[in-house]
Amino acid sequence: MGRKKKTYKWYSKQKLNEVIFGFDTPAGKAYDVILLVVIFISVAVAIWESTPRPSATTKTVLTIVEYAVTILFTIEYAVRIYCSPKRKQYIFSFFGIVDLLSTIPLYLTFILPGAHHLVLIRAFRLIRVFRIFRLFTYINEGIIFVQSLRKSLAKILVYLLFVLILVTIIGTIEYVIENGEPGSGFTDLPSSIYWAIVTMTTVGYGDITPVTTVGRMLSALVMVLGYTIIAVPTGIVSATYIDETRKRVKKGECPRCHGKVQEGYKYCPHCAEKL
Amino acid sequence: MGRKKKTYKWYSKQKLNEVIFGFDTPAGKAYDVILLVVIFISVAVAIWESTPRPSATTKTVLTIVEYAVTILFTIEYAVRIYCSPKRKQYIFSFFGIVDLLSTIPLYLTFILPGAHHLVLIRAFRLIRVFRIFRLFTYINEGIIFVQSLRKSLAKILVYLLFVLILVTIIGTIEYVIENGEPGSGFTDLPSSIYWAIVTMTTVGYGDITPVTTVGRMLSALVMVLGYTIIAVPTGIVSATYIDETRKRVKKGECPRCHGKVQEGYKYCPHCAEKL
Amino acid sequence: MGRKKKTYKWYSKQKLNEVIFGFDTPAGKAYDVILLVVIFISVAVAIWESTPRPSATTKTVLTIVEYAVTILFTIEYAVRIYCSPKRKQYIFSFFGIVDLLSTIPLYLTFILPGAHHLVLIRAFRLIRVFRIFRLFTYINEGIIFVQSLRKSLAKILVYLLFVLILVTIIGTIEYVIENGEPGSGFTDLPSSIYWAIVTMTTVGYGDITPVTTVGRMLSALVMVLGYTIIAVPTGIVSATYIDETRKRVKKGECPRCHGKVQEGYKYCPHCAEKL
Amino acid sequence: MGRKKKTYKWYSKQKLNEVIFGFDTPAGKAYDVILLVVIFISVAVAIWESTPRPSATTKTVLTIVEYAVTILFTIEYAVRIYCSPKRKQYIFSFFGIVDLLSTIPLYLTFILPGAHHLVLIRAFRLIRVFRIFRLFTYINEGIIFVQSLRKSLAKILVYLLFVLILVTIIGTIEYVIENGEPGSGFTDLPSSIYWAIVTMTTVGYGDITPVTTVGRMLSALVMVLGYTIIAVPTGIVSATYIDETRKRVKKGECPRCHGKVQEGYKYCPHCAEKL
Repeated sequence: MGRKKKTYKWYSKQKLNEVIFGFDTPAGKAYDVILLVVIFISVAVAIWESTPRPSATTKTVLTIVEYAVTILFTIEYAVRIYCSPKRKQYIFSFFGIVDLLSTIPLYLTFILPGAHHLVLIRAFRLIRVFRIFRLFTYINEGIIFVQSLRKSLAKILVYLLFVLILVTIIGTIEYVIENGEPGSGFTDLPSSIYWAIVTMTTVGYGDITPVTTVGRMLSALVMVLGYTIIAVPTGIVSATYIDETRKRVKKGECPRCHGKVQEGYKYCPHCAEKL
Repeated sequence: MGRKKKTYKWYSKQKLNEVIFGFDTPAGKAYDVILLVVIFISVAVAIWESTPRPSATTKTVLTIVEYAVTILFTIEYAVRIYCSPKRKQYIFSFFGIVDLLSTIPLYLTFILPGAHHLVLIRAFRLIRVFRIFRLFTYINEGIIFVQSLRKSLAKILVYLLFVLILVTIIGTIEYVIENGEPGSGFTDLPSSIYWAIVTMTTVGYGDITPVTTVGRMLSALVMVLGYTIIAVPTGIVSATYIDETRKRVKKGECPRCHGKVQEGYKYCPHCAEKL
Repeated sequence: MGRKKKTYKWYSKQKLNEVIFGFDTPAGKAYDVILLVVIFISVAVAIWESTPRPSATTKTVLTIVEYAVTILFTIEYAVRIYCSPKRKQYIFSFFGIVDLLSTIPLYLTFILPGAHHLVLIRAFRLIRVFRIFRLFTYINEGIIFVQSLRKSLAKILVYLLFVLILVTIIGTIEYVIENGEPGSGFTDLPSSIYWAIVTMTTVGYGDITPVTTVGRMLSALVMVLGYTIIAVPTGIVSATYIDETRKRVKKGECPRCHGKVQEGYKYCPHCAEKL
Repeated sequence: MGRKKKTYKWYSKQKLNEVIFGFDTPAGKAYDVILLVVIFISVAVAIWESTPRPSATTKTVLTIVEYAVTILFTIEYAVRIYCSPKRKQYIFSFFGIVDLLSTIPLYLTFILPGAHHLVLIRAFRLIRVFRIFRLFTYINEGIIFVQSLRKSLAKILVYLLFVLILVTIIGTIEYVIENGEPGSGFTDLPSSIYWAIVTMTTVGYGDITPVTTVGRMLSALVMVLGYTIIAVPTGIVSATYIDETRKRVKKGECPRCHGKVQEGYKYCPHCAEKL
């Protein structure tokens, strides 16, 4: 009987596990959608609270919602631990820690009153959304994209090192040219390197701008050449992305739903994606 | 005789229908060109009226033109309903509603004096231009482009969700770093997230800019990495666009005029597009 | 004898023609290089003159250079007419008019003293540089690029019409949202449409920026979506460019120097371009 | 015996040479990593020193570090000369001069007190990093990228000339339109051309912006068209990059580590790169 009970209990755990961790059952899907909504509500509350002087009523409502969300997340975290077959693995996994952090902010405010920085932890709750990403069929696109990004990572890192050296040298030259001019923003090297990055990426805030003719000429050169240089990683990632998509079709796998497809198929039989 | 008259009347309707809804007859084309001109005049009038303090004479002229355009559009709307074979379908179609809205702004000013927001409805008249798009042979390019956009929509939406989460987290980190600095624009989370979007898209207004060194370092990272990330949808849409064009040629269809072409043709026999 | 003299004269004209209009003889090349230098000097002078308060000596030198350049260009224009086999055709050709305009600015200042706008005509002298473009072997790249641009023109025009309608509608919506806010730059529709273009192209001057939360949200949407839309023509032109280059190689023509190449060649035998 | 000693000495030189110039031995790799760290420290010190008013203690520490780095670089330069088989070739090579310059800044401050511009030479120390680039396997990516850039150089130069002429003409037109307006930044032609470049590259600082309606219309045109034009080199470089990578695989060379690969290989047997 003891064994039977345990079996029953284990089944119940498995059910819970299916609902909370799984995406395949209708209950699992519904659960994920609800979780998604709660996460977005909690972040919306954090954003709203940061705006200047909300009215007293609003503040009360927002606090209540934050309490509710925290309680929900705490219960959920407990259930996740309870129904996890490998508890330790879950607790110390990336998402396990994210789940724990999601419950903490409110509790910390009891200990550290006015803990201003906790808004950051509340924003990290959004990371939980990535777990639910697999819910949508077309999210596999996103996975291919992330894979393309990871595949191109080595190239992009070398590239970034190159850009870093380049902007340091450019920033220093501009600093030597512009420093000392009245009204110049090139007061020190960090500002000048920051300016070089702002210019090369074509962001162009305009908080630091060259005022001398020579400084402007260098600046113009940086813009025109920098543009060519800065956009290359985009080309690399795009090319990798396109290649990845084609490879999957060739490998007999639908690029959208990962289902098996045979040669000659014009549409994926699982998700109607054109091949 | 009654039957004959009705037939005659029906033919007349069909003629009107050909002229107003069609693009194939010379009269239909001429009608569309006139309509195009009238729409652009009406929008130009709306733009002109919004400029500060036009002279009394200008104001009178602009009002008269708006009256004329409204009367024209009202008559046209009535005729469109009259000559439409399936009236209900037209009235509740997308363009039926746009046509109705095109006549409304002036009438509303009688009821709601000083209705400032009506300029918006007047701008929506421009949507009517899209109906005339098919007039130009090379507009099919536009259709391929829109199809590429629609095909890539799922990918782009997932992508946007990803960007949304990313900018929220980045905006929050920058908010925690910069908030409280004198002269800082990072006064609340919405502003900080807005800053993150302005920076990642390389728009860089400069209305909100980091002032601390740490804030600027994060900001530089967001620019360089963000650049790589934000430009990917472009690559996706472009790739889809190129694929679409090639597919059409393979399917024996001219990518420009949709006319039939045979294998081995070097030019489309209908519009001389190089294949 | 009269006939002989005329023949001699005609030969002399032909020589002049070869030097002035041609690019193949060493004299023709040398002439083009000198012309290039003179054009750049004349434009540099115009730029220098525009800077605030040049010293009296500088001003005298700049005026003398401008006189010299004008006299040179006038003589050159006369010679070009003289040695042109088809005079009328040259005079009314595009470059004939540009050559004439290049001589005019200084003469006009005698008639219209202080003619400020003449600096524009002086800048147009730069157009003459395009004639000399063919001088450089690798300039054919430029020709392919211009051809790609011309080929994509229809697509790009449709695209621009689409963008024009889009920015008008977006600008109007933002105008309705932001107009009336204290410190808002959305004072009229032209400014708002200008803002929409500045934002969609990611230029982002920051002279007009949204201040309301709703306005900023729309603005963020415009940036993210606009980015995707605005970059497509680039993809189109690039794709056409790549196609054009490949076609030339296939047609048995070197993409760089237009020389004939045979199948199997790995390098162009005329300019060593890798095929 | 004399001969033996010399041989021994020569071997020792070779060893030193292997460590300092080579990348293949563990000692050589370790040496390069240490050098990399020292270079970055020295540049970090230069950046830190430029910031306004560091405390006296910080200043002392920074000066000491700079002394230490200079002594290290001086010793290293001497050893490099000592162990170089072809001394003259090394001394007058590009990296030989960079190595010499790396030691100079501090010594110059003894001769020229307060030599402000020396920070530039200190930044050039970063160029030494490029020598160490070969240390990382995936740096070959960077080499392909630089080769793509070099291959596309002719195209890009022609392109830049074209852009230069274009921005001069656009800048002059805008100058004629905007000059004289109150609050206009278009005070002279260099500023206007600078504005044109800032606008066409979509940097958009906002330090100079059009204020008239006509000026804004031209400006909008420059943005939309300029965007299409300015992004083409990116397409060219990306295309060359992709081609280069493919060619290498075809030539039986791994695109990542340059090792030999045979047809049919799916992974490079030297570095496991997917082919």
